[in-house]
Amino acid sequence: MTKKVLKFGGTSVGSIERILHAANLIKKEHSKGNEIIVVVSAMSGNTNELIKKSKSISEKFIKRELDLLLSTGEQISTALITGALNELGVKAKSWMSWQIPILTEGEHTNARIINMSVKKINKYLSEGGVAIIPGFQGLSSVGDITTIGRGGSDATAVAIAKIFNTDSCEIYTDVDGVYSSDPNKIPVAKKIPKISYDEMLELSSVGAKVMQSSAVQTAMMYEIPLQVKSTFTNREGTEIFNQENIDYSKAVTGVAYSKDDAKITLIGVQDKPGVAADIFEPLDKNQINVDMVIQNISPDGKTTDITFTIKRNDLKKTIETLNLNKKIKFKNLNHNDKVSKISVVGAGMVTTPGVTFKMFRALADENINILAISTSEIKISVIIDETKTLEAIKKLHSIFKLN
Amino acid sequence: MTKKVLKFGGTSVGSIERILHAANLIKKEHSKGNEIIVVVSAMSGNTNELIKKSKSISEKFIKRELDLLLSTGEQISTALITGALNELGVKAKSWMSWQIPILTEGEHTNARIINMSVKKINKYLSEGGVAIIPGFQGLSSVGDITTIGRGGSDATAVAIAKIFNTDSCEIYTDVDGVYSSDPNKIPVAKKIPKISYDEMLELSSVGAKVMQSSAVQTAMMYEIPLQVKSTFTNREGTEIFNQENIDYSKAVTGVAYSKDDAKITLIGVQDKPGVAADIFEPLDKNQINVDMVIQNISPDGKTTDITFTIKRNDLKKTIETLNLNKKIKFKNLNHNDKVSKISVVGAGMVTTPGVTFKMFRALADENINILAISTSEIKISVIIDETKTLEAIKKLHSIFKLN
Repeated sequence: MTKKVLKFGGTSVGSIERILHAANLIKKEHSKGNEIIVVVSAMSGNTNELIKKSKSISEKFIKRELDLLLSTGEQISTALITGALNELGVKAKSWMSWQIPILTEGEHTNARIINMSVKKINKYLSEGGVAIIPGFQGLSSVGDITTIGRGGSDATAVAIAKIFNTDSCEIYTDVDGVYSSDPNKIPVAKKIPKISYDEMLELSSVGAKVMQSSAVQTAMMYEIPLQVKSTFTNREGTEIFNQENIDYSKAVTGVAYSKDDAKITLIGVQDKPGVAADIFEPLDKNQINVDMVIQNISPDGKTTDITFTIKRNDLKKTIETLNLNKKIKFKNLNHNDKVSKISVVGAGMVTTPGVTFKMFRALADENINILAISTSEIKISVIIDETKTLEAIKKLHSIFKLN
Repeated sequence: MTKKVLKFGGTSVGSIERILHAANLIKKEHSKGNEIIVVVSAMSGNTNELIKKSKSISEKFIKRELDLLLSTGEQISTALITGALNELGVKAKSWMSWQIPILTEGEHTNARIINMSVKKINKYLSEGGVAIIPGFQGLSSVGDITTIGRGGSDATAVAIAKIFNTDSCEIYTDVDGVYSSDPNKIPVAKKIPKISYDEMLELSSVGAKVMQSSAVQTAMMYEIPLQVKSTFTNREGTEIFNQENIDYSKAVTGVAYSKDDAKITLIGVQDKPGVAADIFEPLDKNQINVDMVIQNISPDGKTTDITFTIKRNDLKKTIETLNLNKKIKFKNLNHNDKVSKISVVGAGMVTTPGVTFKMFRALADENINILAISTSEIKISVIIDETKTLEAIKKLHSIFKLN
């Protein structure tokens, strides 16, 4: 007997036809003798529509009631999937988060799952029933409905896999796995059959959003194997494991990119101890997240140039903060928001020398100028001119044999 | 300190603008120092949309899950109203039926409210907060969401008025009160300032649907005074009381009508004891509701003609049942579904002689043929040719001085 969590994303339950399709898929898995817990997202578009309603009443809609409002999305899809399974002759029953209960802590709209009761549902599974649970929501310590942040249905699925100790956690979505880059925009992108949690996290945080990052982190922490599959094809998906279970024949697994960064350069900053702290402390206080930082000593040895990147949305606030900062002096402030960030990601990098060099050489061969660099154990990111994005990704696919 | 239930129907919360309007109305009542419990219906159209979704999955959608599905409608409007009140600076909090809890008994989709806890909400009211509660739903003895039938938000409002022992129960809707006939179709119809529960029931069951009948029955049973008001005008509404509190200067309060009846006549039925039972027992077994029955002895003294009315939807099934009935013999079966039922309603009738006569005379004066008659203490109903409906209602308004 295999116990499985099957999680269906918003597009997988986005219409009545798709709900029936998902129900047939669940029926098939159930008929193989598996014990099945289904986690359901809201029908695609539904949550945005509810948010729009709330915003047209108040931009600062009170969070307790916003959670109550948004939780109806998954409640609807949960009821519809359960009804569809019953129509198909499958014994199935819904369980709202307050009925289980799924206990959460933390603020409304941003809660975390801390525990849930398994007894009633395990009994139902052992009697041959399929349990359907809404993703994204839980119950607070004072008995109110909470939600766990956008994309939180992944987190619910992983938490259930952990707490119910299931054999697998299958994430059904509208893509058929994790790709070396965004397959909708980068035609050379290729599906990755197996990937480590770390690589998945690096790829998802910089562009290829297949799963919510915090859910992958939780899966990594508790070593819960994940499978990302398409609801709409029978093709093999992507398995997400621990690094040690993966054979790294390639140094690089994928190339991610994002176009929401901006670059700022402070020219002629007075070079003295503590200047970096003086620059970045006020940014931190203003909740501006600084990504890459590069500092060069200037030719005269007295001043320095500091380049760093931030989210594009924060550009205006960053410039204001820098100009108001009395502690620092600089000659000039340059900024550029026509940049993109390209990252090569691969757990195999650690044991393969020369990846950094190869990447820089490849970009140089294409006449692509690198504006900033940052590296981690399994990722090298560079900032380049936005217009060169596709060219760079293609070249990197070719040089690292991802095609 | 006055404690009030304010109930808002689907059209009163049918859009964001209307939700804000209702919230302002609640704020005004609250600012007068009243303790306010608000009961909310689903936004108009929402419940039908959810039912449509369920039907496109299954015509026999499993009822437990249907209740879960439909209950999202009031959950949404409750959250939006509560958010709007907070935006207006009013302390307000929602309470789902499972949080109170509102306990129900009976089947899914057709449950009855049996009790609810008042302590937490009374404490909140005494602290100056407005409590917002979804109508139409409750919790079963096994902890599942139940619903209490279409229009059930009225029943929730009346149950809350009873259990919280409020001073009044105000039903905000899209009409500004109870009319002597349907004001949308009968231009001569006039608003009734005060009406008894019985009259209200007779008027609502035959056409002028302002409130759900079972909610009026509950209000009558516990003598809870009701007020029906328009959300959209400041005009006086209709107060619904006990009969003894109403001054009956008029014999007739209103004229209701319905066009969903059909008439059947069995000609030449063998006249012997038990023939009526033989005719109507099989109809009852087939859940066909018979309304009026008229029986005349035929000239030859051996056979009789029997006329009765049924719901128009049941016509086909009724004819089939009669033709299959081996126990009875008749020469001919006539049927007519181009009829309407006109009812004059008035608690003052009991003490005013001649209402029946006056009604028949008035119709005769207009050359309107009466096809069937039925009377009760506060109602006289006749079946007439459908094309004469408006003419009859106008004449009865004039003769009973309702204009």
